[in-house]
Amino acid sequence: MSGLIAIYSDFGSRDYFAGVMKGVILSTNPDAHLVDSARELDSFDVRRAAFVIKNSYLFFPPQTVHLAVVDPGVGSGRRPIAVQAGENLFVGPDNGIFTYVFKDFPSFSAYEIENPAYTLKATGSTFHGRDIFAPAAAHLSLGVKPAELGRAVEKPVMLEVSETVILSAETAEGVAVYADAFGNLISNIAADGIENPVKIEIAGAFIDGVSDSYSSRARGAAVAVRGSSGFLEIAVNRGSALERFGGEGTKIIVRKRT
Amino acid sequence: MSGLIAIYSDFGSRDYFAGVMKGVILSTNPDAHLVDSARELDSFDVRRAAFVIKNSYLFFPPQTVHLAVVDPGVGSGRRPIAVQAGENLFVGPDNGIFTYVFKDFPSFSAYEIENPAYTLKATGSTFHGRDIFAPAAAHLSLGVKPAELGRAVEKPVMLEVSETVILSAETAEGVAVYADAFGNLISNIAADGIENPVKIEIAGAFIDGVSDSYSSRARGAAVAVRGSSGFLEIAVNRGSALERFGGEGTKIIVRKRT
Amino acid sequence: MSGLIAIYSDFGSRDYFAGVMKGVILSTNPDAHLVDSARELDSFDVRRAAFVIKNSYLFFPPQTVHLAVVDPGVGSGRRPIAVQAGENLFVGPDNGIFTYVFKDFPSFSAYEIENPAYTLKATGSTFHGRDIFAPAAAHLSLGVKPAELGRAVEKPVMLEVSETVILSAETAEGVAVYADAFGNLISNIAADGIENPVKIEIAGAFIDGVSDSYSSRARGAAVAVRGSSGFLEIAVNRGSALERFGGEGTKIIVRKRT
Repeated sequence: MSGLIAIYSDFGSRDYFAGVMKGVILSTNPDAHLVDSARELDSFDVRRAAFVIKNSYLFFPPQTVHLAVVDPGVGSGRRPIAVQAGENLFVGPDNGIFTYVFKDFPSFSAYEIENPAYTLKATGSTFHGRDIFAPAAAHLSLGVKPAELGRAVEKPVMLEVSETVILSAETAEGVAVYADAFGNLISNIAADGIENPVKIEIAGAFIDGVSDSYSSRARGAAVAVRGSSGFLEIAVNRGSALERFGGEGTKIIVRKRT
Repeated sequence: MSGLIAIYSDFGSRDYFAGVMKGVILSTNPDAHLVDSARELDSFDVRRAAFVIKNSYLFFPPQTVHLAVVDPGVGSGRRPIAVQAGENLFVGPDNGIFTYVFKDFPSFSAYEIENPAYTLKATGSTFHGRDIFAPAAAHLSLGVKPAELGRAVEKPVMLEVSETVILSAETAEGVAVYADAFGNLISNIAADGIENPVKIEIAGAFIDGVSDSYSSRARGAAVAVRGSSGFLEIAVNRGSALERFGGEGTKIIVRKRT
Repeated sequence: MSGLIAIYSDFGSRDYFAGVMKGVILSTNPDAHLVDSARELDSFDVRRAAFVIKNSYLFFPPQTVHLAVVDPGVGSGRRPIAVQAGENLFVGPDNGIFTYVFKDFPSFSAYEIENPAYTLKATGSTFHGRDIFAPAAAHLSLGVKPAELGRAVEKPVMLEVSETVILSAETAEGVAVYADAFGNLISNIAADGIENPVKIEIAGAFIDGVSDSYSSRARGAAVAVRGSSGFLEIAVNRGSALERFGGEGTKIIVRKRT
């Protein structure tokens, strides 16, 4: 174990929720190495959080505990779970937030967090980040195995997510799956298969060719790039493709030119 | 001492203020363990900051130094203070930000930070976070006692805060004392005393019964829950009770039903 | 070396970019001490970022690595650089973000980051924070020398910045160079030279005298203070001078009175 805990939540920084989770962790493991990975995730948006985790966790050292709390169903029937996927550990609600992790590691194992030895004593029903997830993450960071937390969860919740599209024939049609804070649109079209000359269509506009950088076109011009997550991205140089073309679900078509 | 310093401020993350405080601390105690507890507190809102600290500090390990800088009166007559309350340490302005700490620990001791051995040499009048509070917190994290910082402060500033209301007779009347970033309203009515059947009134609307989770009602419906801070909360499932009912000071009435 | 890495970026906290940089650093140096110095810098605003770094880095311990990523030209021709300036280390794009560092330490040395031993293997063109800057910073924090990263850069990009104005004769004329999140305007007029009685003019309004604190005037009144960065600041007590008088470039005149 590394003692490293990467935290993802929609708690923001205006309230006490994010700080309290850290206090609880450090009360159990004073040597935990806490990292704010993403603390201003969009409220209640499990799908977006899942995408952020997908693009983050493989860049952390093995045995990092990824603590993810975007949890609109807290206190309802949804289970709190701990997950082992390869050498990576996860703690959070069973609401689909780990969908991509399960896809990346089909041999994952998941467990319900129910052993009271690893949660706070007075567990309420509205702040499981404090009462269940933070203490469970702290114990994992100390070397406790996920299986010690509770019974196995065979079929955790999976979100339906857009499958990767590869440009093989003349045309590939995909969608924007994520808009980042700069307004760049990340698609589900694999960047690897795309070689110029191509023409890209989005929301009635056409972009000639795929480029190497956001700034390869004039300021204010739309540009298509091979994005850092391995997928085609649509951007506007120093502007917002989100505002110009729309967000998640916007159709993107790539056509080979000859 | 634990070396742990939890930071609360309204400095945000767009400027250099929050970072500079950390640099100053680490220049004095390179082994300090810094935790961003709440770094986007509302500007100048001492009352809200006091509530955040109230709900945070007891979840941190003993000997944690809680460094709190929401300080609209910086450079005026208000004193910089260090506080010992039980096994918890606090550093910040004497403007009421530690009101709830003083109530929790009536045997607290407070000291004015005036010993120049524990502040920066060139102390200006507009950024005491850097010049006074950060270095004082760093020294406390190294084991310096609050009493070494300066003379005792017998009567630090206390904000007038709403007293806890307990549902004993047929009716309890309280107010919203805090709205979190999700728009949930935290009241001053103790959750412990409330058992169904009850009816709750807020801003002309009525909620039947107290529930276990925000999502126990339909999306968009108002819900009353026993909140994680021990008080009755009014929420709107995936929406904002703040927008629907109003913020701090909004009247909330709980009536027993028979 | 101290292992300390202070991070400045416009990546915010809604996305995975800031977290991924941390994961990459910790994968190379698990003992790195990461500090969020400013993680919500204004998007693409290199000038503002340069000012934040100017006012931050000297407060950190020697050998701190300052990792700065505001990088609208990522993937274009602009070089990634590492800088040694006195006992301080810097990593970021060669786009002027270190302008003030070069002015503070004319004997600085800068190097292009091109040695593949110190970057990620699969370097893309849109996220150099992850692929180049984070790994380079991690290696510097382990004791690698900047000169090992690549060839010397003789003339890194410098922004044109307002020179410091000193009140020597009867009048000094300067401008607002930075507006902080509270709406305070920091000028380029040295605070040291200003002694009452003076009269200050900004956007057609007049302020009598320079004060010691933001709250030395009535709530809502404009006030001129000797700011914590060593320059004259214009503020509005509990309000925003930015909204009242305008932002960067607004003219400020100080006149001695007799």
